[in-house]
Amino acid sequence: MTTAKRDTYTPETLLSVAVQVFNERGYDGTSMEHLSRAAGISKSSIYHHVTGKEELLRRAVSRALDELFGILDEEHARVGRAVERLEYVVRRMVEVLISDLPYVTLLLRVRGNTGTERWALERRRDFDHRVADLLKAAAAEGDVRVDMEGRLATRLVFGMINSIVEWYRPGGGGTTAGDVADAVVRLVFGGLRKAE
Amino acid sequence: MTTAKRDTYTPETLLSVAVQVFNERGYDGTSMEHLSRAAGISKSSIYHHVTGKEELLRRAVSRALDELFGILDEEHARVGRAVERLEYVVRRMVEVLISDLPYVTLLLRVRGNTGTERWALERRRDFDHRVADLLKAAAAEGDVRVDMEGRLATRLVFGMINSIVEWYRPGGGGTTAGDVADAVVRLVFGGLRKAE
Repeated sequence: MTTAKRDTYTPETLLSVAVQVFNERGYDGTSMEHLSRAAGISKSSIYHHVTGKEELLRRAVSRALDELFGILDEEHARVGRAVERLEYVVRRMVEVLISDLPYVTLLLRVRGNTGTERWALERRRDFDHRVADLLKAAAAEGDVRVDMEGRLATRLVFGMINSIVEWYRPGGGGTTAGDVADAVVRLVFGGLRKAE
Repeated sequence: MTTAKRDTYTPETLLSVAVQVFNERGYDGTSMEHLSRAAGISKSSIYHHVTGKEELLRRAVSRALDELFGILDEEHARVGRAVERLEYVVRRMVEVLISDLPYVTLLLRVRGNTGTERWALERRRDFDHRVADLLKAAAAEGDVRVDMEGRLATRLVFGMINSIVEWYRPGGGGTTAGDVADAVVRLVFGGLRKAE
């Protein structure tokens, strides 16, 4: 845990410490006292930067949400056949999840007890729907199988991607974000079974 | 929550109440007082059945583990080409997860703070290895693709299956265990993309 000197403290380092503490203790279980101790600065210094822990939560999940929604604005997510756009989005979701691992982990653990949490859940649902729409478009274009319900397929694909936060550790075992993204794309689009 | 009369109380109903409370409050956050209130019986009545909450945890996760390991002893998991056995095991994992949803949910949330939790994690790892071995055998028989690392593929497939506990609700939306098992098997083995 960082023990940055007070005079080098920035809102960004405070946010990074807060996200780590939220992920370890749970957001509900984290007090300003915990944040103050983990950051090595006084509570009043924290209040100099933010109004309280809910603002830190909002900034943290916003960062994850902005990265995820940003994917949908990228050229390869907007142009081309739906199945190709979907494949691109799935790959980029894995990359964002790994590059912003603590922030996405926090986003995925949000439970809905506060206004900020309910807002984050709503935004997550919006994102899920955007991806489900892409899957629907790919089915309409005849490129994906239609022998399973679209919503179910989307949930399972998100389940696989989101589970990565449970075991992926940067630098652990030499598995790179690219390796994981490749495996997810191959599995989701091609399946395990070798083509006849 | 049940408020069964004391004289109709059985170890089985106590276990079922305990699993529900553990899943709601987390195992660490559950006291004997919570269990006593949820079950509507005194703490000493609970101690009549078990030595404490850790024994309830052990019984609950044992039930889930026994069901999961039981799959591997079933005929279709033992006889035939490895890819077919793997497909059978994946389907049955989904079915067990849904039929024993609260028990498997608890098993998946175990963290490792007590001896029982560490034992459960160890047993889960054993099960994961058994499934990973099946995948390896299927690759050796030439039936599954080998362009992704086996351990990574296993983790992703388990991630997809385990994520079902986060959203599946019995009777919700008319999606049956069979629908979910079919979708998982199709997705995992065939992938989303329609064969050329």
